[in-house]
Amino acid sequence: MTDAGTGSLLIDGIGSLVTNDPALGEGPLGLVADAALVVEDGRVVWAGPRSRVPEGAARERFDAEGRAVIPGFVDSHAHLVFAGDRAAEFEARMSGRPYTAGGIRTTVAATRAAGDDTLRAGVRRLVAEALRSGTTTIECKSGYGLTVEDEARSLRVAAEHTAETTFLGAHVVPPEYAADPDGYAALVAGPMLDACAPHARWIDVFCDRGAFDGDQTRMILAAGKERGLVPRVHAGQLQPGPGVAVAVELGAASADHLTHLTDADVEALAGGGTVATLLPGAEFSTRSPYPDARRLLDAGATVALAADCNPGSSYTTSIPFCVALAVREMRMTPGEAVWAATMGGARALRRTDVGRLSPGARADIVMLDAPSHVHLSYRPGVPIVARVWKDGRARA
Amino acid sequence: MTDAGTGSLLIDGIGSLVTNDPALGEGPLGLVADAALVVEDGRVVWAGPRSRVPEGAARERFDAEGRAVIPGFVDSHAHLVFAGDRAAEFEARMSGRPYTAGGIRTTVAATRAAGDDTLRAGVRRLVAEALRSGTTTIECKSGYGLTVEDEARSLRVAAEHTAETTFLGAHVVPPEYAADPDGYAALVAGPMLDACAPHARWIDVFCDRGAFDGDQTRMILAAGKERGLVPRVHAGQLQPGPGVAVAVELGAASADHLTHLTDADVEALAGGGTVATLLPGAEFSTRSPYPDARRLLDAGATVALAADCNPGSSYTTSIPFCVALAVREMRMTPGEAVWAATMGGARALRRTDVGRLSPGARADIVMLDAPSHVHLSYRPGVPIVARVWKDGRARA
Ligand SMILES: [Zn+2]
Ligand SMILES: [Zn+2]
Repeated sequence: MTDAGTGSLLIDGIGSLVTNDPALGEGPLGLVADAALVVEDGRVVWAGPRSRVPEGAARERFDAEGRAVIPGFVDSHAHLVFAGDRAAEFEARMSGRPYTAGGIRTTVAATRAAGDDTLRAGVRRLVAEALRSGTTTIECKSGYGLTVEDEARSLRVAAEHTAETTFLGAHVVPPEYAADPDGYAALVAGPMLDACAPHARWIDVFCDRGAFDGDQTRMILAAGKERGLVPRVHAGQLQPGPGVAVAVELGAASADHLTHLTDADVEALAGGGTVATLLPGAEFSTRSPYPDARRLLDAGATVALAADCNPGSSYTTSIPFCVALAVREMRMTPGEAVWAATMGGARALRRTDVGRLSPGARADIVMLDAPSHVHLSYRPGVPIVARVWKDGRARA
Repeated sequence: MTDAGTGSLLIDGIGSLVTNDPALGEGPLGLVADAALVVEDGRVVWAGPRSRVPEGAARERFDAEGRAVIPGFVDSHAHLVFAGDRAAEFEARMSGRPYTAGGIRTTVAATRAAGDDTLRAGVRRLVAEALRSGTTTIECKSGYGLTVEDEARSLRVAAEHTAETTFLGAHVVPPEYAADPDGYAALVAGPMLDACAPHARWIDVFCDRGAFDGDQTRMILAAGKERGLVPRVHAGQLQPGPGVAVAVELGAASADHLTHLTDADVEALAGGGTVATLLPGAEFSTRSPYPDARRLLDAGATVALAADCNPGSSYTTSIPFCVALAVREMRMTPGEAVWAATMGGARALRRTDVGRLSPGARADIVMLDAPSHVHLSYRPGVPIVARVWKDGRARA
């Protein structure tokens, strides 16, 4: 069995196909049973029931043998450029032991001290790991450099692996600016932004207790917009705050975490163009309460799921794990969770070419070793991603 | 790089080795940093710091390049002999929709209708899947046949894949005995036991609401003991009950689930020879409260972790997933969870040849793509089991 690479490929014998196009199949997932998919030059050109595959559609044929096929996951929130890990801090936290030396500053110090090749190898390893579990599009933030040069090189390294690069100089105030947080915010919105904007598509601020307040967030995001970057915001992870309001006000693509939400936040997300991105891996690894996904969904907000891979609070790249948590802990249905991890992620990155498997979409395709997408939550912890194509090429 | 098969093998360059032998290293895990392991004829013959490896120890050498090595997982609770799956029932339950046709009887009907080869293929697939995630010893119960012939053939199939076979005719009262549960208990303890005992090492009863009461449990286990089978019990999954008391009274190797425990239960487990086996995968997939592992550990009970793989309430084979849940949800430390999934499982199966990596043990070895065993919970959902040896042979 071979693949067509950038040539043409017929994936046949699909037991259940998630297209995320309601015009092609049943429900919001656009489910098609006994389906087939035709790929040409890295794009989906046809999707539907196998009984209706266009004749002579493709040179190469892959038989899914009744397995389920879904769009590749779109992980819209990841912190991959860092050095070191924080396993000892994790162990102490989960064992109820004090651990004073820990925290994000440990990672900032290790990242600043690391060579480019170390950072590059780390990103490469995590992107490959994510790909093996079905993630074909991944966002990547800076935020562990926190100097002009270290933020810029973090983004240069990130840009080698993804087009979805996010400038997060406003991740935390670094120790050397502890006495002058406004001075640090001005640095972020001035010289650091100048150095980083050429390497980034997005600008993000951690708007929460102990990080940046509403005014600082608004100022930094507005400066980023002037440089052509589109805002996204870390909001409401530790406590309710102005993050969501500022995100919606400035037209952010996404507000992320949302562990703590006010009624006004829910209303703003439901009525605006800002996606609500939930990161249950962070709640899992910090033993925090989970965000109220049902409240957001029932209000009509667009919900995305992302893994928030980072060494401090969510050291996982596994979207299948996050899908299982979303169902178990946030009462999303198995279908809602799969939609949020594919089309939801695409919406959060304002991409129309990924997150779906309908004509014109990139051929970013995941085959499960299971007959349906429900098995992503029904079989938690089991690596059921059996095969991944990116741009029509078999990659894992 | 090659392996010695049943010959001799040196695993060198181990960043962190879990031996589970306190005489060989630090703490209950017997942790050795910068370690090596020597295997001969499928057994561990030496374990310790690599600086002290005996000279000329082995013909073949494998370099772990700083990764962690732990004993293979010992999964002491699994229901692998069945046909069909219950994804639709899972989806309905997790979506809050009624689903009247579901339940264990669906699996019983599918299992009775299936040919031996279907059952055999199912067990083979799940045992292989478990092996890839590091499980080198797995128990396997009957319990979806519930006729003399279907229970016996379930155990014959199970015995093709593991020595740890468990007769669980007393899983549930089948529909045809609904009006005569005592008649079914008598069948289990009589003709069914006669047919099954030659193929089983253990006898198990589901002692809980809607299944078997204390008197039935005692009667069935006692009959099994007379036939040379050793008892183990499903106890306290749905409500507190007599399961633990009967288990300890009859000298059961393990009492499993323990979601609901009385003070007397905890005292009995702490004082007796019955292992407390926790199955957090079942609580995950049924949205139930988790058992109180700390209460058991702090009382001095021996705690094991198992995956309870079954199509109804815990369709996972992943012990790494259960380890992560044990830490997040049951407040076990990362070390306690790894011990429970290795040595704890061995104790629950009364095995001294597995669950440890010290001289004399089977060379059932797991290498992680991570520097420490802590990463099993620090990196949840990520398939970090990189390599598995069983009896000294590379298997995954
Ligand atoms: Zn983040
Ligand atoms: Zn069970």
